[in-house]
This record gives sequence, structure tokens and C-alpha cells, in this order.
Amino acid sequence: MAKPRRSSISRELELEHPIEDIRHEAVLNVIRTANVLSLQGAALFRRFGLTEAQFNVLFALKYKKQAWTQSDLGKRLVVTRASITSVLDKLERKKLVLRASVPGNRRIHHVELTAKGRVLVDEVEAVYRASIHRALAAFSEAQCRRLIGGLERLREGAARL
Amino acid sequence: MAKPRRSSISRELELEHPIEDIRHEAVLNVIRTANVLSLQGAALFRRFGLTEAQFNVLFALKYKKQAWTQSDLGKRLVVTRASITSVLDKLERKKLVLRASVPGNRRIHHVELTAKGRVLVDEVEAVYRASIHRALAAFSEAQCRRLIGGLERLREGAARL
Repeated sequence: MAKPRRSSISRELELEHPIEDIRHEAVLNVIRTANVLSLQGAALFRRFGLTEAQFNVLFALKYKKQAWTQSDLGKRLVVTRASITSVLDKLERKKLVLRASVPGNRRIHHVELTAKGRVLVDEVEAVYRASIHRALAAFSEAQCRRLIGGLERLREGAARL
Repeated sequence: MAKPRRSSISRELELEHPIEDIRHEAVLNVIRTANVLSLQGAALFRRFGLTEAQFNVLFALKYKKQAWTQSDLGKRLVVTRASITSVLDKLERKKLVLRASVPGNRRIHHVELTAKGRVLVDEVEAVYRASIHRALAAFSEAQCRRLIGGLERLREGAARL
């Protein structure tokens, strides 16, 4: 007789009651995996004196092509845009970003990396990318695409709620 | 000539620069999807006067089989165990959980649902499960298992870092 399947998330959380709903298990897996990745990211960024939110801002600014206001930046962040003002304040105090005045509009500012910010984000990005490649070393490109495709479909489904 | 692939996450975030690293894109997709799911979960739980953390605690307590201390509970939560004391304080004030003294050990307590807590978690769980099933309506069981398998392998890879 086959043993009832005991999923990895049940083992990880030492659940006494198996998760019987496969769709619920999928959702828990997404949230759990994101949490594991965020904790590992946070530990990595901390070695450079940064929080995850601060790194996300530096990283987004590195790859922007046009001038961005704070609100443009907020739209581009994968996660929360709530506390962006306080994140920018902290980065500005560390002289990693600057808010430049916009000619003709005194109420908004453009947000830019400083030279110091650019050097730091380049350094952290290299370590961050290497660590992602180690974590996904067992994934072929096709497997990455399948995982991405599944997550995209899940977001589409969630958006229809 | 084929157009360069423009992924869903690039569109969602209106990125000006395509994500060229497929493994990085996979990681961003996990974090983004979890964030979307959490925001939707938070909106659902709010209708019942609960935060996501409060629901997670009620839900874990519903399915436990043995007596749990606060620390047993913390181990079983999919996400943060940091603020569990304050979450329990709030649930206790709403009379949804109680802390029962443990015979022979005055320093620890067992955490239990109250009758009111059990009624509420049953009610919220039904709505929560229905919403998960709508979000994943397009997924077959096999597709769920594939997604879960990919996420488990990603956590295994991350754990080796």
C-alpha cells in the first residue's frame, strides 16, 4: 500500500495534519519559497549594510533609462512601495542616492544613484547574482521558464479575483 | 527576426530594461507572486477583521493535533515567527485564542482556539479556500504538482547556500 504523500512543506513545518488541498499547497509553497529567498537575500544584503528594500531601490535605479521621480520608482519595485520615502531618506543619508530638483516643477524630484551608490550596487549585484545562480544551479533554462510560466499563470488567476 | 521576449514581470513592472538572466527572473517571479497573493489574502482577511498573520495563527491552531506552546506554534508558521507574541496578544484580546497554563510548568502556556475563534476560522477558511480555487482554476492537479516541485527544488537549492 502506498504511503500517503508527505510533501516537503509538511516536513519543513512539521505539520501534524497533511495538506490535502493541492491548490492550497501550491499557494503555501509560493509564499514559503519567497520567504526563504527573502531571508537569504536579507542576510546577503546585511553584509553590505543594506536592507532588502534598500537594495531593491538601488538595483531599480541602476537599470532605469530615463529620469525617475519617487513615484516612477515605486511602480517598478517588485514588492512594497509603501515605505519608499523612508527607504530613500536612509539611502540619501548614506550618500548612495540623491534627489535632484526638476526644472520647472518645484514639487517633485528625480531620484538618482550617486557615484558611491553605483559602486556599491555593482558590488552587491555580483554577489547577489552569483548566489541566485548557485540556488538555481540544478535548473535548466527550460525548467526556469516552466516555473516562471506557472507563476505567471497563478498571478493571472489571482488578478481575476 | 524574432522580437526579444518581453516577460510578464517586465510588463507588470514597466521595466525599461529587459531581465536577461532567466534565473534572476525566476526568483523575481516567486517574490512577486507571493506579494500579489499576500496582498489579496490581506484584503480577504480584513473583511473579517483579521490580519494575514492573525489568520495564519488561527489556521495553524485549527489543524494542530497536540497541545502546542507558543514556540511550537512559531515553528509551524509558513512566514515570520518574529512578532508571534504580539499577534497572540491581539487574538487573545479579541477572545479568539487563549493561553492555558501547563500543569507542572509555570513558565510556559499552551495556545488554543476559543469556541469563538473556531467559528471564525471555519468561516474565513471557507472563503479563503474558495478564493484559492478560483485563482488556480486553470491549473490541473498535475500542473499544481509541477509548480510545487519546482518551488521545492528552489528551496532545496537556496538551503544549500
